[in-house]
Amino acid sequence: MKKYQLMAPGPTPVPSEVLLAMARPIIHHRAAEYDVLFREVREGLKRLVQTREDVLTPACTGTGAMEAAVTNTLSAGDQVIVVNAGAFAQRWLAICKAYGLRAVELEAPHGETIAPERIALAMRENPGVKAVLVQHSESSTGVLHDVRAYAEVTRGSEAILIVDAVSSLGIADLPMDAWEIDVVVSASQKGLMLPPGLGLVALSEKAWAAAKRATLPRYYLDLGEEQKYTQRNEARFTPAVSIMVGLREVLRMIDAEGLVEVFRRHDRLSRAARAGAEALGLTLFPKTTPSPALTAVQVPPGVDADRVVERFAASHNITIDGGRGPTKGKIFRIGHMGYVADFDVISALAALEQVLYELGQPVDFGAGLRAAQKIFAERP
Amino acid sequence: MKKYQLMAPGPTPVPSEVLLAMARPIIHHRAAEYDVLFREVREGLKRLVQTREDVLTPACTGTGAMEAAVTNTLSAGDQVIVVNAGAFAQRWLAICKAYGLRAVELEAPHGETIAPERIALAMRENPGVKAVLVQHSESSTGVLHDVRAYAEVTRGSEAILIVDAVSSLGIADLPMDAWEIDVVVSASQKGLMLPPGLGLVALSEKAWAAAKRATLPRYYLDLGEEQKYTQRNEARFTPAVSIMVGLREVLRMIDAEGLVEVFRRHDRLSRAARAGAEALGLTLFPKTTPSPALTAVQVPPGVDADRVVERFAASHNITIDGGRGPTKGKIFRIGHMGYVADFDVISALAALEQVLYELGQPVDFGAGLRAAQKIFAERP
Repeated sequence: MKKYQLMAPGPTPVPSEVLLAMARPIIHHRAAEYDVLFREVREGLKRLVQTREDVLTPACTGTGAMEAAVTNTLSAGDQVIVVNAGAFAQRWLAICKAYGLRAVELEAPHGETIAPERIALAMRENPGVKAVLVQHSESSTGVLHDVRAYAEVTRGSEAILIVDAVSSLGIADLPMDAWEIDVVVSASQKGLMLPPGLGLVALSEKAWAAAKRATLPRYYLDLGEEQKYTQRNEARFTPAVSIMVGLREVLRMIDAEGLVEVFRRHDRLSRAARAGAEALGLTLFPKTTPSPALTAVQVPPGVDADRVVERFAASHNITIDGGRGPTKGKIFRIGHMGYVADFDVISALAALEQVLYELGQPVDFGAGLRAAQKIFAERP
Repeated sequence: MKKYQLMAPGPTPVPSEVLLAMARPIIHHRAAEYDVLFREVREGLKRLVQTREDVLTPACTGTGAMEAAVTNTLSAGDQVIVVNAGAFAQRWLAICKAYGLRAVELEAPHGETIAPERIALAMRENPGVKAVLVQHSESSTGVLHDVRAYAEVTRGSEAILIVDAVSSLGIADLPMDAWEIDVVVSASQKGLMLPPGLGLVALSEKAWAAAKRATLPRYYLDLGEEQKYTQRNEARFTPAVSIMVGLREVLRMIDAEGLVEVFRRHDRLSRAARAGAEALGLTLFPKTTPSPALTAVQVPPGVDADRVVERFAASHNITIDGGRGPTKGKIFRIGHMGYVADFDVISALAALEQVLYELGQPVDFGAGLRAAQKIFAERP
């Protein structure tokens, strides 16, 4: 028996309590029971996103929520800045292209970030820029971008800051209102420990003002219309009811643990995973602040990272993921977001030691585990 | 104890077997297990939609799938014909407006349909028409439109026929290829007995040719891109994994019952519901072919239909629905689609007798039930 462990950088494991809550008979979205549920979920989402604004819940995955952020705040021909340091940044670029926006691309090699000064410079050079589009956690490279500093650049300008928080919401601190972020985009299947199928989008006052001027076409993901219904505690269209039911459970779990402790746990898990990998002689892929959502690791010369991913699955029944595009075969990525505890990371590191050994690499058995244990033994 | 019964015209009850299948630990959409599942689901969907084409499965609800049908096959300024005889037809009009299409509206009073000759005439009067947009089952009025005859009008012309089959797929026969329908749009939460959150879209060869010319912007719901991945049995974006897991179970259930028998059952359920309502002296709302998905009933003078809906819930724990817009307070609608069997209709009619009595109407107790029983006693 090899117990299955899902440790990909999304989708992530869903707690049994949540799965069973979602397995209860379906409720109608215009019934009194849903009314109570939606009210609780709306309040919980505001706490999670740390905003006074409503967090809208369209039935789509993260990419749909990203598209909604763009089509609801911009117009064809608008100039935007895209912080491009990974595969999800390229999704911003693809969306911009599909909708006829002119993107100023600030590129960094995968594994690195963009200094806020570069954004400030690009804004001076392109005074008409309407939005800056970034990832908070770029899960293709394992890097956390300094969204707080980016917000200091956009604040006071005409440009809105649109942040993809798909792999950071409920994982890394992102106080939307305090940092003055204009659009936060997220989805259900990462830190929120739910099946994929629910998008999350919150707009600041500044973003809503931009939305009033925006002329890109949209209907299904028209956030202004969605907002009208949400403020009446109603669903505009049939919502993803079962995921909303699960979301209520998840928000209660997060409230019970406390948001600060949730962030602290992810920080601890990621520090332990990184310490473990380094203790085994491996090199971390991020050259800058790593994301607490996942650990991206370079393989030693002569090893194919995709073989590491395969061995995790075949020998140990653990799903992790490899690199994409320029990093394919060069890195593997272990997710530790959402419903993940200390000893899940211990299991992953134990598997990593075994896999390196299986692939003929020299391994000091226990070295990775020891390094992680020392992190877990720290007292706050 | 009043057992809960969901008999709204969607969402509809999800079988416990399906709920429990979806409650199993989440699987990764790039894992071997999902590969096998997706292959089975794709084949099952082709049988269900009665087409050789792939049925695409974007993570969205029915409205998203409707929007995708429009944005993937048309260009701004295109002229289209919309068969407008209810609330869901108005959704077509709203989508067309949002995307700058010029809609020729063929209007019929709610409860009625549009003769195919009117479409043929409108096409002669507007020779540049690129698409005809219709509902198969208009669940706001309980009418089934004659899509087969509409397809005979569009066949051989440049126009494609786009059919909203949200409340007819797996309920009323709609052989896409045999009838030469160009786009079939549906969703998970009606005949497919699943939670909301999965859209279904299939395009004919003619529709794919239109898609190649179409310039409306789209990214998340870009069906051409979706198709490329689907044909490789891959997911373009994170799919609605848990609903896909449920869909496999549902397709197996439908295969086991047999599609012909599934249509026969819905026909029988709807004939029984109508016979029961009429035996109680009520008037059916449709003036033309009724949809087998639901029964829309007019209330007697002096009765508010919304009170009937309320009493169903308050006294009998059964969710049905009322009218919308022009029919608000005038009709109530009982859904009998998907996971519904003969005696669910018996329960609904029993409740109807009680509710009419509660509202001070004269009731011949058992008359509605007797009429339904006679239908159920018929031997094929």
